[in-house]
Amino acid sequence: MQVIDGIRISSEIKQELAIQVIERKTQGKKIPHLAAILVGNDGASMSYVNAKVKACEEIGFESTLIRYDSSVSEEILLAKVLALNLDKSIDGFIVQLPLPPQIDEMKITQAIDPLKDVDGFHPQNLGNMVVSLPGFLPATPMGILELIKRMKIETEGKNCVIIGRSNIVGMPLSIMLGRNSYPGNCTVTLAHSRTKNLSEVCLKADIIIAAIGQPNFIKADMVKKGAVVIDVGTTRVEDSSRERGWRLVGDVDYENVAPLCSYISPVPGGVGPMTIASLMMNTLKALELKGK
Amino acid sequence: MQVIDGIRISSEIKQELAIQVIERKTQGKKIPHLAAILVGNDGASMSYVNAKVKACEEIGFESTLIRYDSSVSEEILLAKVLALNLDKSIDGFIVQLPLPPQIDEMKITQAIDPLKDVDGFHPQNLGNMVVSLPGFLPATPMGILELIKRMKIETEGKNCVIIGRSNIVGMPLSIMLGRNSYPGNCTVTLAHSRTKNLSEVCLKADIIIAAIGQPNFIKADMVKKGAVVIDVGTTRVEDSSRERGWRLVGDVDYENVAPLCSYISPVPGGVGPMTIASLMMNTLKALELKGK
Repeated sequence: MQVIDGIRISSEIKQELAIQVIERKTQGKKIPHLAAILVGNDGASMSYVNAKVKACEEIGFESTLIRYDSSVSEEILLAKVLALNLDKSIDGFIVQLPLPPQIDEMKITQAIDPLKDVDGFHPQNLGNMVVSLPGFLPATPMGILELIKRMKIETEGKNCVIIGRSNIVGMPLSIMLGRNSYPGNCTVTLAHSRTKNLSEVCLKADIIIAAIGQPNFIKADMVKKGAVVIDVGTTRVEDSSRERGWRLVGDVDYENVAPLCSYISPVPGGVGPMTIASLMMNTLKALELKGK
Repeated sequence: MQVIDGIRISSEIKQELAIQVIERKTQGKKIPHLAAILVGNDGASMSYVNAKVKACEEIGFESTLIRYDSSVSEEILLAKVLALNLDKSIDGFIVQLPLPPQIDEMKITQAIDPLKDVDGFHPQNLGNMVVSLPGFLPATPMGILELIKRMKIETEGKNCVIIGRSNIVGMPLSIMLGRNSYPGNCTVTLAHSRTKNLSEVCLKADIIIAAIGQPNFIKADMVKKGAVVIDVGTTRVEDSSRERGWRLVGDVDYENVAPLCSYISPVPGGVGPMTIASLMMNTLKALELKGK
């Protein structure tokens, strides 16, 4: 059994990007600049955005953090998105989700210039993905593909079961892994809350990707010997033994499932760090797509 | 076993649309107007486009057929697309595929205004479909959903195997049938040329949708008793007993598979007529989306 070490792999990617930043500097080229909009004071959102800003600093990207109170109006947020679309110094930007209830998330997402949409959530980018046109892939599924690629895991002709059909993970990942490419060419089954006999479906899988957000949902009796298991779950559960009072728990009962696997990604330290690495890759790509 | 009669169902839809045209007329509203661009003299393309124009006439839609010689340049075709985008009398238009080799099909598809893209091939419309935003669904998968809906076939929690991952049928259909809606909520498996043990995969299916373009590919020993089988294949095979010298053959060995099925769609007379009915529905929708 091999552990898919997302910390090591994401760190490799960041080092590669840092080298590219140095090369760009010596060539007098523009340095990638990521902006992030954070609304409110949600603990998880703040820590995600801080981690993104920190990654920019490590790599040598420029970054700008824009904060709004949770009472901000949709109008003000939309105006900021349009301003960032026009701002030539900003190569890519994200609006950290979730947003407060007075703001229509989809409206904000659709207002972002697809060429600066480094989170890959804009329908134009999702559509480009469906027909394999150039564009930005959503960061989490892209990070999973990168893990598979760098661990040299075979995918062609494999039965891949993805559990969870969210717009930002399961659904796009099912498209990406079914395409005629590497990683890809899997026979993908997209399972969800209405799926019957999920255990049976999972037992047929060579590759299981769990993205449901239910702690320890995937048990050992659902996993075939030798399977690849990738855990996208990151639920915060109370843990009084930790100073911060919680710990992250994945969708996979790691302790009992891991011994069965050929490869498995842990939580934390698996997919999580890859989302940020993908965002950084997309930010550099945004600049390159402009031919700069 | 019930035969899914695409001729009857598409005819019902056309009658419903014809009534709506009459209502629009009495209300002094604009009549839907579809334009079709046909390049060259390919027999199949000509007959498809003619059938679309004929459907417009039957329903009472206005239609415009624009023809080019197969030697037309990409530049001229692009200019026509842009002109149709701007032409307020045209509500929706299609460019019949395939196009000759000197023309980049994807470039043409992307040039069409997504709000007039009644074939539903533009990446913006495919992306809208992924995140369940309003837009145009691709005509053939949309026609298949309409068959399922009008036959009142249950889909929730069903294992659905789609064979063939084309951009215009298999891939979008896999997304549509996996969404949280009716028809939908299936556990969808998208199979293709790299799938191993296809027979075994098909035998698990409650619903099989064959879209590979290989005559009689789906045999009786691949189909579970009571399954729903929908055949999207339309291969022209030589047939000297017919005056025109060919007949349409589906992807399913109908004679041997049909007795096993709860529902089956024949070729011809199943999915084929529904593609045109969907195109007509999309053309009316294009006008309605403009609030006219």
